Amino acid sequence: MKRLLLTPGPVAVPSEIMVEMARPLIHHRTKEFEAVFAQAREGLKQIFQTENEVFILAASGTGAMEGAVVNTLSAGDKVITVNGGKFGERWGKIARAYGLEVDEIEVTWGEAVSPAVIKEKLESDPSIRAVLMQASETSTGVKHPTDQVAAITSKRDDVLLIVDGITAVGVFPLPFDELGIDVLVGGSQKAFMLPPGLSFATMSEKAWEFNKTSDLPKFYLNFADYQKSALKNTTPWTPAVTLIIGLGKVIGGFMEEGMENIYRKRELMSLATREALRAINIDLFTPDAPSPALTVGVAPEEIGAGKIISELQAKFGMTVAGGQDHAKGKIFRVSHIGDVDRNDMVAFISALESTLGSLGHDFTSGVGVAKVSEMLGTA
Amino acid sequence: MKRLLLTPGPVAVPSEIMVEMARPLIHHRTKEFEAVFAQAREGLKQIFQTENEVFILAASGTGAMEGAVVNTLSAGDKVITVNGGKFGERWGKIARAYGLEVDEIEVTWGEAVSPAVIKEKLESDPSIRAVLMQASETSTGVKHPTDQVAAITSKRDDVLLIVDGITAVGVFPLPFDELGIDVLVGGSQKAFMLPPGLSFATMSEKAWEFNKTSDLPKFYLNFADYQKSALKNTTPWTPAVTLIIGLGKVIGGFMEEGMENIYRKRELMSLATREALRAINIDLFTPDAPSPALTVGVAPEEIGAGKIISELQAKFGMTVAGGQDHAKGKIFRVSHIGDVDRNDMVAFISALESTLGSLGHDFTSGVGVAKVSEMLGTA
Repeated sequence: MKRLLLTPGPVAVPSEIMVEMARPLIHHRTKEFEAVFAQAREGLKQIFQTENEVFILAASGTGAMEGAVVNTLSAGDKVITVNGGKFGERWGKIARAYGLEVDEIEVTWGEAVSPAVIKEKLESDPSIRAVLMQASETSTGVKHPTDQVAAITSKRDDVLLIVDGITAVGVFPLPFDELGIDVLVGGSQKAFMLPPGLSFATMSEKAWEFNKTSDLPKFYLNFADYQKSALKNTTPWTPAVTLIIGLGKVIGGFMEEGMENIYRKRELMSLATREALRAINIDLFTPDAPSPALTVGVAPEEIGAGKIISELQAKFGMTVAGGQDHAKGKIFRVSHIGDVDRNDMVAFISALESTLGSLGHDFTSGVGVAKVSEMLGTA
Repeated sequence: MKRLLLTPGPVAVPSEIMVEMARPLIHHRTKEFEAVFAQAREGLKQIFQTENEVFILAASGTGAMEGAVVNTLSAGDKVITVNGGKFGERWGKIARAYGLEVDEIEVTWGEAVSPAVIKEKLESDPSIRAVLMQASETSTGVKHPTDQVAAITSKRDDVLLIVDGITAVGVFPLPFDELGIDVLVGGSQKAFMLPPGLSFATMSEKAWEFNKTSDLPKFYLNFADYQKSALKNTTPWTPAVTLIIGLGKVIGGFMEEGMENIYRKRELMSLATREALRAINIDLFTPDAPSPALTVGVAPEEIGAGKIISELQAKFGMTVAGGQDHAKGKIFRVSHIGDVDRNDMVAFISALESTLGSLGHDFTSGVGVAKVSEMLGTA
């Protein structure tokens, strides 16, 4: 059976990228590799919408998240974390592992954080040094209002905004310099439609000011070393050569297509999928603040998500993700990033209709497919 | 021009491994990936010669080296580092970044550390908690006497032996359990003949005892999390899926060929290359303690290594490595690991003879090729 990877990371990698990475290995201390690196580096700056260097780490996203903390903060610093899902929870775990004091804002899964709550906390406690949040929380499908939070933190010289953009950067605009974000993290296996193994990070001038006094220990993740090396089109430690070669190729494609077109495509796929789910009587887990990276549906209670996910896999070769922790068995998550297009979304809704129909869910057969087909047109 | 990557990491990757990694991406939280992981996990235990779990990190070797330190030691601990090259120097840098007190043994580049010096230091200063060394120092081509150092440290409950085996594990036997090593680190882009991006680590029971009281902060590199996940055939953070798929395939090949045969092949290639260099009047940088992973030749002073390396590249498509720091321009390093065989070594000596001849070096043309051909036979 032909297979379709529809998880919100790892995502389907275009076969031409896979083939590019399968060419004979080259050494990383060569002009040839430096040229690839230079292309990736310039492209990353455009996608992160920053004049700053964007570091390329041989680590998955969690490594870059840890890097964001250890390169800016100091032992005992107090930080706000936005915990509205597995990745928001992770900010708290990382911060505590380094002896930071964590003021965690618990947000109901599926909802976005309120910027007013962050504002109030920052105003009432001047000792808070940073806000750590997700731009897009992959475990719930929520898009948090990074822009509104940045409008608050960017007015303060003594507070950083540290953003996990792993399912955001390259999916929707997140203008780092313009918004005044201070650290932004991305990952290869999401919008960059590569295999996992690379992550990215960039830091503002304000973050570099914090870096000067940051006393948390760091070595492999020391961004100052990446900064020095990036200027020479290399990395301080042996880079993940093949993944960076793939990155150069992906970024080349992105630049050709234009980021605005990519953002529009993801947004439209996301919108059409949500409308299709509504049409077949599937509630959205995140009706009010959906991330364009993925759509999260609530499984009908009498069916359960596990059954839907396993039938999609067994009968249609489609891998979608389930929920984690208390959302396990309740939701399913389908990706709009990676090598997926309008045809894949139509196929997904068709398979979902067939699955739900056979499991006794009540809806008018065909309305979901009609909706997604119509809305996506020739997108 | 057909190219030949002869650097001691990254090494040439067999094309069938590249092709295996280029297949459509699979998700890591699936039975399919768990089966690949399980195979890699079992194979790694055999190659590391241990009953302990071997962790698979999405990080290059430096990440695993840092992990070896932060998972076992505590702030203020005193350690011995063996600095006889760039990687030995790195142990000191990592240790200092975490506030450890470092007693560095400086070893002349090209020579092996004296176990007696380590013994004496440990006896005269009972506060030393660990010895950090390389089994094979890639920057110089030295094989340090890990077995003799382990014979000393394994008698002490309060001293760990932490070994960087990045160009050792899979190249020559380094029986972890039998020798009583406490932490051993490996990397994908060396004997495992994969692209860079993965590193490996295993810990002894004694190291786990140290782990209980280790107070250095850690998150991405927290081996306790990798231990828990390994038992479920997965990793705590998103793994570098394609590289692990390649690893499974490489290890399958290793098990088929038999590690003893692989060790014998590397040893013989190394021996024959050294003899060939001697035959054409090229001094060995490491005559007394050569690592079978690579051979390091001293360039004739009037020619310089830079010229030899660039001619090999330009005229023969061969990439060999130069020296670092004060050895820059003085030595060239050729690898015996990765997808290289007897034919490649013959071709290398032939190209080297041609290069040296044209640069005016004095030797009897053909004697190097004859030597390497004869010694390698049909190996």
